[in-house]
Amino acid sequence: MGNRIPRDKHQDHTEAMAAQRREFASAQSGVDFKHLAAYSFDPAVTAGNIENFMGVAQVPIGLAGPLLVNGEHAQGEYYVPLATSEGTLVASYNRGMRLLRMAGGVKATVVDDAMQRAPVFVFDDARAAREFGRWLVDNFDAVKTAAESSTRVGRLRNIEQYQAARMMHCRFNYTTGDAAGQNMVGKATYFACEWIKQHYPGVQKYLLSGGMDTDKKHSQLNTLHTRGKRVIAEATIPRALMVEEMGLPTETLMRMRLVGQQGVFMAGAVNNGLHSANGITAIFIATGQDVANVAESSSIVSYAELDEHGNYYVGLTIPSLICASYGGGTALPSQRECLELLGCYGQGKARKLAEIIGATVLCGEFSLGAAIVAGDWVSSHDQYGRNRK
Amino acid sequence: MGNRIPRDKHQDHTEAMAAQRREFASAQSGVDFKHLAAYSFDPAVTAGNIENFMGVAQVPIGLAGPLLVNGEHAQGEYYVPLATSEGTLVASYNRGMRLLRMAGGVKATVVDDAMQRAPVFVFDDARAAREFGRWLVDNFDAVKTAAESSTRVGRLRNIEQYQAARMMHCRFNYTTGDAAGQNMVGKATYFACEWIKQHYPGVQKYLLSGGMDTDKKHSQLNTLHTRGKRVIAEATIPRALMVEEMGLPTETLMRMRLVGQQGVFMAGAVNNGLHSANGITAIFIATGQDVANVAESSSIVSYAELDEHGNYYVGLTIPSLICASYGGGTALPSQRECLELLGCYGQGKARKLAEIIGATVLCGEFSLGAAIVAGDWVSSHDQYGRNRK
Amino acid sequence: MGNRIPRDKHQDHTEAMAAQRREFASAQSGVDFKHLAAYSFDPAVTAGNIENFMGVAQVPIGLAGPLLVNGEHAQGEYYVPLATSEGTLVASYNRGMRLLRMAGGVKATVVDDAMQRAPVFVFDDARAAREFGRWLVDNFDAVKTAAESSTRVGRLRNIEQYQAARMMHCRFNYTTGDAAGQNMVGKATYFACEWIKQHYPGVQKYLLSGGMDTDKKHSQLNTLHTRGKRVIAEATIPRALMVEEMGLPTETLMRMRLVGQQGVFMAGAVNNGLHSANGITAIFIATGQDVANVAESSSIVSYAELDEHGNYYVGLTIPSLICASYGGGTALPSQRECLELLGCYGQGKARKLAEIIGATVLCGEFSLGAAIVAGDWVSSHDQYGRNRK
Amino acid sequence: MGNRIPRDKHQDHTEAMAAQRREFASAQSGVDFKHLAAYSFDPAVTAGNIENFMGVAQVPIGLAGPLLVNGEHAQGEYYVPLATSEGTLVASYNRGMRLLRMAGGVKATVVDDAMQRAPVFVFDDARAAREFGRWLVDNFDAVKTAAESSTRVGRLRNIEQYQAARMMHCRFNYTTGDAAGQNMVGKATYFACEWIKQHYPGVQKYLLSGGMDTDKKHSQLNTLHTRGKRVIAEATIPRALMVEEMGLPTETLMRMRLVGQQGVFMAGAVNNGLHSANGITAIFIATGQDVANVAESSSIVSYAELDEHGNYYVGLTIPSLICASYGGGTALPSQRECLELLGCYGQGKARKLAEIIGATVLCGEFSLGAAIVAGDWVSSHDQYGRNRK
Repeated sequence: MGNRIPRDKHQDHTEAMAAQRREFASAQSGVDFKHLAAYSFDPAVTAGNIENFMGVAQVPIGLAGPLLVNGEHAQGEYYVPLATSEGTLVASYNRGMRLLRMAGGVKATVVDDAMQRAPVFVFDDARAAREFGRWLVDNFDAVKTAAESSTRVGRLRNIEQYQAARMMHCRFNYTTGDAAGQNMVGKATYFACEWIKQHYPGVQKYLLSGGMDTDKKHSQLNTLHTRGKRVIAEATIPRALMVEEMGLPTETLMRMRLVGQQGVFMAGAVNNGLHSANGITAIFIATGQDVANVAESSSIVSYAELDEHGNYYVGLTIPSLICASYGGGTALPSQRECLELLGCYGQGKARKLAEIIGATVLCGEFSLGAAIVAGDWVSSHDQYGRNRK
Repeated sequence: MGNRIPRDKHQDHTEAMAAQRREFASAQSGVDFKHLAAYSFDPAVTAGNIENFMGVAQVPIGLAGPLLVNGEHAQGEYYVPLATSEGTLVASYNRGMRLLRMAGGVKATVVDDAMQRAPVFVFDDARAAREFGRWLVDNFDAVKTAAESSTRVGRLRNIEQYQAARMMHCRFNYTTGDAAGQNMVGKATYFACEWIKQHYPGVQKYLLSGGMDTDKKHSQLNTLHTRGKRVIAEATIPRALMVEEMGLPTETLMRMRLVGQQGVFMAGAVNNGLHSANGITAIFIATGQDVANVAESSSIVSYAELDEHGNYYVGLTIPSLICASYGGGTALPSQRECLELLGCYGQGKARKLAEIIGATVLCGEFSLGAAIVAGDWVSSHDQYGRNRK
Repeated sequence: MGNRIPRDKHQDHTEAMAAQRREFASAQSGVDFKHLAAYSFDPAVTAGNIENFMGVAQVPIGLAGPLLVNGEHAQGEYYVPLATSEGTLVASYNRGMRLLRMAGGVKATVVDDAMQRAPVFVFDDARAAREFGRWLVDNFDAVKTAAESSTRVGRLRNIEQYQAARMMHCRFNYTTGDAAGQNMVGKATYFACEWIKQHYPGVQKYLLSGGMDTDKKHSQLNTLHTRGKRVIAEATIPRALMVEEMGLPTETLMRMRLVGQQGVFMAGAVNNGLHSANGITAIFIATGQDVANVAESSSIVSYAELDEHGNYYVGLTIPSLICASYGGGTALPSQRECLELLGCYGQGKARKLAEIIGATVLCGEFSLGAAIVAGDWVSSHDQYGRNRK
Repeated sequence: MGNRIPRDKHQDHTEAMAAQRREFASAQSGVDFKHLAAYSFDPAVTAGNIENFMGVAQVPIGLAGPLLVNGEHAQGEYYVPLATSEGTLVASYNRGMRLLRMAGGVKATVVDDAMQRAPVFVFDDARAAREFGRWLVDNFDAVKTAAESSTRVGRLRNIEQYQAARMMHCRFNYTTGDAAGQNMVGKATYFACEWIKQHYPGVQKYLLSGGMDTDKKHSQLNTLHTRGKRVIAEATIPRALMVEEMGLPTETLMRMRLVGQQGVFMAGAVNNGLHSANGITAIFIATGQDVANVAESSSIVSYAELDEHGNYYVGLTIPSLICASYGGGTALPSQRECLELLGCYGQGKARKLAEIIGATVLCGEFSLGAAIVAGDWVSSHDQYGRNRK
């Protein structure tokens, strides 16, 4: 059989080819791939999602909820499928959902929405780059037309400019409907750049990506200017509820939060929350998102304060949540079932999904935060002892 | 049925309970969960991996390779299972594996290995915190004994100290055998902290995590001091090979790399590579790793230089790659098959797996880098035109 | 005399009061402040620049140059006064100026110019904050009128919005003529905010600074969006010149640069240059700038590449250079002399000064870079030996 | 006279040469440098501090205090000379000193002290670099001997290792007595590296600075591991005092602090304090420090919490404060007077100076923080109105 993986001639993703690949891999390794082979669908459905298909990873899904969401798109109670192999994750999120439901639920809001490609244009010197920037502003409408000629859904919203040396780094921002849109905006930006090259004589060279889209990577730029959805999840926990349910006065929670924030800042962490990646990853796997985007989508800016009655407000901002209800892996069989469970499959559902994810993450933050403090905060001479049950 | 998810009384993970939950979810949503239900194993195997089990996400796996690795643990050719729903990902890694195989393969090395828990101790003032730090150095052996009393495998290697205000943030570093070890080191550090509390009168309060372990989050601290495996993957591509196979002179690739590095730095990106998260995520899902760790494990420090003959050396450092060949989700049925395909299941295989992951990531970086430059670099007056085929 | 510093009743900055303070300080410490007292001007000139005036720090000034600048405002040769007590600093910059003069001088360009105040508005929830953001866009003209009513020079250019939780952080960007403008924009923004408070009912609370102006602190935001002047200094050193003058082939310089860039990235440094702070600080002290701005003004984004002939292009971007030719300390006697030496005193000279500073910094980078490599690069088996003189 | 700056033949720093340079500069610019010329000392004293000496910048000094310090080296009341041309700076620090004196003063502690040079060693591959790292640990004593052979004062404390690709970045940490020590450790590290090169055959190339000392630049690494002095300044303000003196309930101050911290984090600022650079720069200029170090020395990690009585604790950490009581510019005439005013001139005084600087910075943070909140916090429907005077 040699050492070449059997290939589809026509990318037709047949069962026969998948079986050949499993046999090939068995011959190499001696493994009998019976669990990889136990998929419940015709491999043809994976065309466009995978190359060299040989089977499936079966990732356990646990159910958490009800999650009470007060969104603009998601309203009411949801049961959230979480795909993970890490014990306690589902239980922890479940506990947080219960607590926040008792507190009246999570308010979730999508405040911004854009997907980017960031080409860079290289000139002879900084002045030429600056001049190009001005031209680009003046010719935005034509560039927009060129970009949008390649796509039915994508709309070029604005172009940010960041100059350094003799390069003009641009960040093209698009709305992309219910798709995550990375490929869509790549193609549209290519069309725009080719139009620019034809119409602006000074452009000698460009790269379709000059590093400032920071795809699959956290960046401060994405935190500032959004990538995908910018979702904010908010809740206020009454002091009495936190004491009763978690055994924790909110003042203690706040004080410990401050200590932890110092640690985060000193470590140079890019996320001042606790474990947002856990919930986001689990939903991403379950619902067919591009899971590699966890690298950027898991970033959160977490804010908390006490009001004068000791009630604890938390507002959690996810500035670069990339999620889709359409396209990519969303139509794969098990993934579609999970989206349907949330009422988030298909057109017009991406923001609803974003709200549910935001709300879920907030529940997880509360659950773990309370656990760390309640279980670990130890004081033999606790001056705040009156606060404890 | 109400709005309560049916629960296991004994965490026994039975098929009956899973079916009850699917019925419950169907009642809520109207979805028939036939694909979630199509798992090929007894749910009992998921005990410890999930709560409220209701089925599986079926994530397509494509096969890439052969990947030629020159590691200390992985030596020879490997076929790598990549679980993803993003089209072209497998093809892209495959292309990179082919190129680097022609260049003699990837040298992969694990240069450091540690898992952390970072408790913080709070004192009356900065001097008391400093004093504690000195005591901790003097009493390391006893602390180590206390920590290790809780674990068969974990070994406390050293304790880093970071003082700010009246807090002493500590970072306990452990070796954890072939497990990722987050839970193991959490428990061991708890034992250590409780011992400390009993033996150091000044410790009034501590938190088991003070934010400096930056679990599930990228941090500069982890980049500096390693979390999980610190893997370095290296290769040198002869100039002629790059021209022949990719149509790209290495000088062009280097020049474009420099432009992109400027973009990365200006954006405040935490990863100066291209798309490491893609390969890492796909292997993590396939092999039962804690996929949420992509948030931190996807960080890379990428280095490249040209030698005087125009050959292109790349050395890619993954400073916080958390991977296991044992524990967690590694024994789940399809996941185990993928680990076995790589010869990485069970005891003594974690470093081998880390080497394979590092080598895979390097192949993906080459493949995408060449694609961006070859396809997108456009110049009507290309002064470097002589370099092009 | 007690322990109260003698105070001006009328902030009249008289010699008598200064003398009283020196006597007071002598009484406390036994020091005879003859050098602090040896100023060459009437203390009245310091009104508005200092409180509790007691004398002067005499900081040595060395002269460097000629610096050959090809700017839009600075054109020709300049002699640059550098105030420092660090030996070799002047010599090092001087050497770099000599080298770059031989290479044809430094092209310097101001590509952006803005000063900020960043108020934050707090609302009941994220939706209210988002709504405010939309209103602010719609009412920009009125806000601009309100802001500009407080200033003769400042012009409100645009307002950036950054939402997190229930806060809308805004960044008001102004042009400020030849003044640095921090106070001017503070006052203008206060006027704008008070107008907003009266006209937008939902604004219950705001802070005039919500942390995103990052005054006196480096931030990625300032690197991206400019604070003060964004100056770019460029030069190309012919390969032969570098070899002759510095004994260094440019390939060696580039290779060592790449190694250093890896160190910078891994350290989490916010500036990928070498010692920009040295030159900027020395000019700031000499010319009466707000020297504390070195914290933010010293940041640089440094770019270098080799062309196909081995010539070495460097483009250095200073994204947040805060400098003034008017206001602040610019009219103090010795400071004014230094500005006049550069032809940069008074109205219409701030950008010229920015160009000269940018050019100076670039010279210093070349000088130190060559020194590190020439002196320190050691190789007993140097494979690149042909490159060396 | 041509365009060459008149040079000392013997670096003898004579008045005659200084006058020649002023004449030269006058000829170029038409400026009469009478204020630059008005120094009160023999230029010979500047030998080693400056090249091409032509005069002095006269920077106004204002006196602030009394500052009440409870340090390990500084104890009691101090009057602090602040050199600046920025109006209100002295008044603001003065106000803070008054407030904290009423609160019992500032506790200041130096918790760490080290100066670095960070050479990088380049090898054939990552394994060779790792091997070198082990050898370096085993041969620390000999390396230390080699390093210390070059210096009377410097002591090599430890060597940190940071590996990436085939490079081993090292960070040599020294204690340097009362000097800042950058030059001292550079020379010592050069001696160490040369010894290493002779004794470790695999070292083909090294750079004396590989970028990880981050001299004159902020870095997360310095925040974590200290550069210069790590000083912590602490104070607790009784709630009643804050209300009486500043008109501010501490709860309001805390709430506004949290809002500002969100802004800082989102902006990617490297310093979560307010304006530490102001006080540090003013003392640095006055006392002959290397003012360019403001780039790194101004970084602070600021922590605050309320106790159960509403008293406000602040602990401010300056992780990379580089200050000296000996060497550099400390012996220049006016600079020495300022050090003597603080009782910090000469041997054995560097830590005392660090404590005074730390305490001063804390006073400034309180003063500005209260001003922002008291003056700017505006609420027409203030739910916390009861808190206000």
